[in-house]
Amino acid sequence: MHDPASVGAVTAQTAEFNTPLQFRSGATLDGYRLVFETYGELNASRSNAVLVCHALSGTHHVAGHYEDNPRDIGWWDNMVGPGKPLDTNRFFVVGVNNLGGCHGSTGPSTIDPETGRPFGPRFPVVTVEDWVVSQARLADRLGIEQFAAIIGGSLGGMQALQWSLDFPERVRHVICIAAAPKLTAQNIAFNDVARQAILTDPEFHGGDFYDKSVVPRRGLRLARMLGHITYLSDDSMAEKFGRVLRSGALNFGYDVEFEIESYLRYQGDKFADRFDANTYLLMTKALDYFDPAHSHGGDLSAAFRGATANFLIVAFTSDWRFSPERSEEILKALLDNELDVSYAEFKTVHGHDSFLMTDPHYHELMRAYFQSIEL
Amino acid sequence: MHDPASVGAVTAQTAEFNTPLQFRSGATLDGYRLVFETYGELNASRSNAVLVCHALSGTHHVAGHYEDNPRDIGWWDNMVGPGKPLDTNRFFVVGVNNLGGCHGSTGPSTIDPETGRPFGPRFPVVTVEDWVVSQARLADRLGIEQFAAIIGGSLGGMQALQWSLDFPERVRHVICIAAAPKLTAQNIAFNDVARQAILTDPEFHGGDFYDKSVVPRRGLRLARMLGHITYLSDDSMAEKFGRVLRSGALNFGYDVEFEIESYLRYQGDKFADRFDANTYLLMTKALDYFDPAHSHGGDLSAAFRGATANFLIVAFTSDWRFSPERSEEILKALLDNELDVSYAEFKTVHGHDSFLMTDPHYHELMRAYFQSIEL
Repeated sequence: MHDPASVGAVTAQTAEFNTPLQFRSGATLDGYRLVFETYGELNASRSNAVLVCHALSGTHHVAGHYEDNPRDIGWWDNMVGPGKPLDTNRFFVVGVNNLGGCHGSTGPSTIDPETGRPFGPRFPVVTVEDWVVSQARLADRLGIEQFAAIIGGSLGGMQALQWSLDFPERVRHVICIAAAPKLTAQNIAFNDVARQAILTDPEFHGGDFYDKSVVPRRGLRLARMLGHITYLSDDSMAEKFGRVLRSGALNFGYDVEFEIESYLRYQGDKFADRFDANTYLLMTKALDYFDPAHSHGGDLSAAFRGATANFLIVAFTSDWRFSPERSEEILKALLDNELDVSYAEFKTVHGHDSFLMTDPHYHELMRAYFQSIEL
Repeated sequence: MHDPASVGAVTAQTAEFNTPLQFRSGATLDGYRLVFETYGELNASRSNAVLVCHALSGTHHVAGHYEDNPRDIGWWDNMVGPGKPLDTNRFFVVGVNNLGGCHGSTGPSTIDPETGRPFGPRFPVVTVEDWVVSQARLADRLGIEQFAAIIGGSLGGMQALQWSLDFPERVRHVICIAAAPKLTAQNIAFNDVARQAILTDPEFHGGDFYDKSVVPRRGLRLARMLGHITYLSDDSMAEKFGRVLRSGALNFGYDVEFEIESYLRYQGDKFADRFDANTYLLMTKALDYFDPAHSHGGDLSAAFRGATANFLIVAFTSDWRFSPERSEEILKALLDNELDVSYAEFKTVHGHDSFLMTDPHYHELMRAYFQSIEL
């Protein structure tokens, strides 16, 4: 199973930090761990590093596979690898599991050294700004003073934008895909229904379910089912599932009947088996809170006044979660500051999930953009 | 509190039926009760009757108020009354609570005479076609051979359409507002998440919660919160709530924070207090199953071949649940059959809920249409 365009077998690494981290909420962690992966080689001038920021349910495992689990392919393996758009023959790529996550970095399921039990609901509510600080510390550890590029889709794109605001001197190119400068009331509403599904699940136990040998599966499953509706477009659902009946006929009951139900319940079940409920809550709050314009009286252009990076903003026509209009708001703010900006809108059917797909035009653009980055 | 444009204090009536009703599913009810209200007077030639069909959470209480509860105003009181668009000085208006409902008509919470306990999950899965049959029997009871018009919004509009197919000789005008000829995969997906929220609530007890002194509040609440997102438009939510914070500042926790959360949770709580979970399941299935084209090989025009009524089809630009494109599908099928059809699309901001609002252009059209109906 040798794929020459794959980074191949990869190994996750960990970095321990003993400097306290103060969160935007005021809470502090005395120490924490970040789990990360790297692909390619950092060049001598340390000018070829690219940070990949993950979205709601992503991880540090961006590309390649694990020796002991060849089927566990990185979530953006179609984008990152030798000869791929983000070419690991040229770039040194870093993927990191965000703080508060559930894939190895310190998060709600980690044992709090002060109490000897999992942080659970006591883990600080983490924001995009907090993540950027923790990622900058990881960059220090790796000897990366300045990233050639920081890239992410959705919540990952928000982190890329935030880097350009908080550490303008540390990033040359920001690539922000399928994101928004802030969530709308409707976006927040969807997140709140998902959160309420988890919070009201009797097996959530106020977030302290770890020692109860239960998990709030029902809530997580509903949250993920709902999420999936917003990741796909109406058209892609119609194309993929339509009104096709599983058994060919109506069953006049509540078992799976339409194919779309089967798909969503499967996605929900799979997610509930692997994801942490407290992490899900944290990720949705980070989304809700992201709003760089807020501290500038709602003026997004003012928020970007200190940015110096070059930007590539990408949107997809069928994305109704973060529509192209939302990317255009970012574009306008960047142009108002006379920054170097490229904007691309791709006609796709896959909705918000398009950023993970291999649309050839989209990938061609990404390839060309990365090739244009001087090292 | 005398409102000359109100039908005033009204009283619900009941009709008992002892003729067995066979459902599309094959199930049978030996007898059943329908609760209904009427406003205005049936004229001597019995030519002025209008049936109002309700949507998912509606009832027979369409207009007016109850003597002992003046605040319990009918759900379409802005449309129905003396001098209102559906003028009760001219028309005899009938509102009926659909079979399977939870407001007086036989439904899951009704005692099954055969077992002495509530039907619960044993209540037949009811379809739009079944409702139309039961409504026709009510019409027989009231001495109405032919309705001047049958009107409804959303699921109510589907019933109005079905009447024109199953009893073409019994309806002269069909007014179908904010509806669709069938649900999309995305529509079904939202319904299934709502159903799963209810079905997996531990207090649902497989639908037999009535004798357990609990109700599946959590599930119903989530279902309603989610429903509300799809009833409103992104723009109306933005206008009404935006990103306004309840307390003016982020609280870094999971209590109500944004105004939109407060609104949705309130709506969810209120609904969970008054609505029956089994009825909710039934109503969503009726929506999913509605597909008159299905028995004609997917050809909607063929489905309407036997229709003879005049039609008014109404859609709203901001309705993303059942968008104007969905109404245009109906329009096309009617025109293919050279039926007398009027179509109106109104520019509103209230999303799917627009059909319940008092947009002046919309109400003017309704008024004019009803005035044009010959008695």
